[in-house]
Amino acid sequence: MLLDANDCQLVLVDYQARLMPAIAHGEQVLERARRLVALARLFEVPVWGTEQVPDKLGPMPPELRQACRQVLPKAAFDASDTPLLRLLQPAAAPAGNARSLPKHLRKPPEPTRATVLLAGCEAHVCVLQTAMTLLEHDELEVVVVSDACGSRRDRDRDAAFDRLAAEGVVLVTVEMVGFEWLRSARDPRLAQVLAELK
Amino acid sequence: MLLDANDCQLVLVDYQARLMPAIAHGEQVLERARRLVALARLFEVPVWGTEQVPDKLGPMPPELRQACRQVLPKAAFDASDTPLLRLLQPAAAPAGNARSLPKHLRKPPEPTRATVLLAGCEAHVCVLQTAMTLLEHDELEVVVVSDACGSRRDRDRDAAFDRLAAEGVVLVTVEMVGFEWLRSARDPRLAQVLAELK
Amino acid sequence: MLLDANDCQLVLVDYQARLMPAIAHGEQVLERARRLVALARLFEVPVWGTEQVPDKLGPMPPELRQACRQVLPKAAFDASDTPLLRLLQPAAAPAGNARSLPKHLRKPPEPTRATVLLAGCEAHVCVLQTAMTLLEHDELEVVVVSDACGSRRDRDRDAAFDRLAAEGVVLVTVEMVGFEWLRSARDPRLAQVLAELK
Amino acid sequence: MLLDANDCQLVLVDYQARLMPAIAHGEQVLERARRLVALARLFEVPVWGTEQVPDKLGPMPPELRQACRQVLPKAAFDASDTPLLRLLQPAAAPAGNARSLPKHLRKPPEPTRATVLLAGCEAHVCVLQTAMTLLEHDELEVVVVSDACGSRRDRDRDAAFDRLAAEGVVLVTVEMVGFEWLRSARDPRLAQVLAELK
Repeated sequence: MLLDANDCQLVLVDYQARLMPAIAHGEQVLERARRLVALARLFEVPVWGTEQVPDKLGPMPPELRQACRQVLPKAAFDASDTPLLRLLQPAAAPAGNARSLPKHLRKPPEPTRATVLLAGCEAHVCVLQTAMTLLEHDELEVVVVSDACGSRRDRDRDAAFDRLAAEGVVLVTVEMVGFEWLRSARDPRLAQVLAELK
Repeated sequence: MLLDANDCQLVLVDYQARLMPAIAHGEQVLERARRLVALARLFEVPVWGTEQVPDKLGPMPPELRQACRQVLPKAAFDASDTPLLRLLQPAAAPAGNARSLPKHLRKPPEPTRATVLLAGCEAHVCVLQTAMTLLEHDELEVVVVSDACGSRRDRDRDAAFDRLAAEGVVLVTVEMVGFEWLRSARDPRLAQVLAELK
Repeated sequence: MLLDANDCQLVLVDYQARLMPAIAHGEQVLERARRLVALARLFEVPVWGTEQVPDKLGPMPPELRQACRQVLPKAAFDASDTPLLRLLQPAAAPAGNARSLPKHLRKPPEPTRATVLLAGCEAHVCVLQTAMTLLEHDELEVVVVSDACGSRRDRDRDAAFDRLAAEGVVLVTVEMVGFEWLRSARDPRLAQVLAELK
Repeated sequence: MLLDANDCQLVLVDYQARLMPAIAHGEQVLERARRLVALARLFEVPVWGTEQVPDKLGPMPPELRQACRQVLPKAAFDASDTPLLRLLQPAAAPAGNARSLPKHLRKPPEPTRATVLLAGCEAHVCVLQTAMTLLEHDELEVVVVSDACGSRRDRDRDAAFDRLAAEGVVLVTVEMVGFEWLRSARDPRLAQVLAELK
């Protein structure tokens, strides 16, 4: 299955100021995340963010933070104690009151974008635990953008990718995302995509 | 499943003059492509080619281009907006008029060669997107010749191979192709195969 | 499936005094084992140990040995000729007499902790053979903690991991274990987990 | 599934005098093959051999050759044009005349050893093609002893292992074989196995 920009959402996991310096190849990971966010803006893909105990680990970098529709603080490593799932699946969780409105006044639920891209740190902790939770929702396709993920130790990161792949998560790179969202060199956004990816 | 020369077709993807210098180990990739094409000629395996926006990226090298029955220009990264699928599956897409001919005048449809080998650049963009599209056609077996594929970054290439394998694509090398098409050292083409592969 | 501390048991396989000096990166493997044991203590995860022909290969290091509820000497490379399975599955193997007691006096069987984590040496001999035996018990989830396992040759170790993964064993690292047992930064054991893993 | 010496047969593929010098790490591959053969002798595992166009590539080394019940010359890369399958499956292919004998005179067919271990060169040609052919026989378990296999280029060898694993072949190392055939340190053959593997 190729990625379709109109069916995708992106979750940026814990790219935080006091965590990133400890991540192996942290600068490179952040740079890939910036490109991913630029692509998401270009293709109008919704971006959500999470921050792990932000009072301790600090905020995400401003350029990533500003791209997020909402940034969810969290304490659990996976995102199950935040409203993330409700944000990802608005149609599946309609507001209770909506049903009492006359039909012509009800806003049709936004169709769920069923492909959820995850990127962030640490690959083997918060990214992995969030991916595993999302996998239990059969209606979602869980994709991890591997080169925009990092761990303090490469061995943990690589073991995370192997475990995720074995569980059925699709592993992609930022470049795959860009060229699958674009699909054609005739798309007017080609020049911008190439500028982001070179 | 071993490769059977009589059931194979080969698609050369975007080995173009202004793309190849940017590919990691580009010279080596081209050299593998040349051997693959020599093998295809020897075993009378049909070869098709694609060129991505050829006005910008230039043509394939002449020795690859001349081996192709047809070279399809394209703008989409995957081959779905070219006639490629119709070329690969002549039996599945008979000309509409054929049915009105008297039976004895109808040319029997050429049986489809159901194994489609892909090789080219970039592994994680055009090769991957084309392979994913072909995979949706259950009657085709999709094979990627890994050592004749390249990307600008090795990491993207390797991630492409992992993703393709996870989706069910068979990954082979040029040498595997040569010796599976040959099958036996008694085949009179042995000397030529060995000359191509040494 | 994420690891749940309340459903886990840990088996330490043959970390023995006269075996470990022959293991590639043996000191590092032992250090990972020590962390794993500290995590097990913190989360009250039962720990069992095995010692291969201890009269010849010596005992486990005291700090690992003391963490074990029981240490089983063995001669077979897999654990099938020890009482290990009965220890892992107390509910599945109730004492014969229990049924003759009046119902209100019977102790309810301890529910089985169905996730069995294995760590030890050699990865491709005793760990692999024990994992393969446990895999035949469908009610158990078999997990191998890869960075706490070693072999004399890395190639044998890596081949063991590939074979185990192909058979359906889940491969994790010590850090994954710690953060999955913890689940949340709000857990009061956070500081201790971080101290063990840094 | 662990290997059981009583259910195994070993096929040595094309370890020939004029091929081995071209194999990457050829000496090491041969040394692993010698150990494998010593283990087979110790556990009375039948050994068969194949030689690819022996008039051109020469014979196997004598110490391997002498271990074989039969050495089959061949021209095809896979073993399908030799009597190999009939040798591997005597019960499945009883001599036609046997049925006409009175029952008490008929020799009961030797039960098939259903696990076929393959080792040899080149990994991506003759070993791979033979393994793929054997895989079509559902009653056989196909195992490749990876560290006793070689190719001229490591990349072809590694691609062969990946493809074989994807097809369902079990990949093991010589050490795994030794310790699975042995199973227990109480087996009187322990000292000999350790001598072969150290």
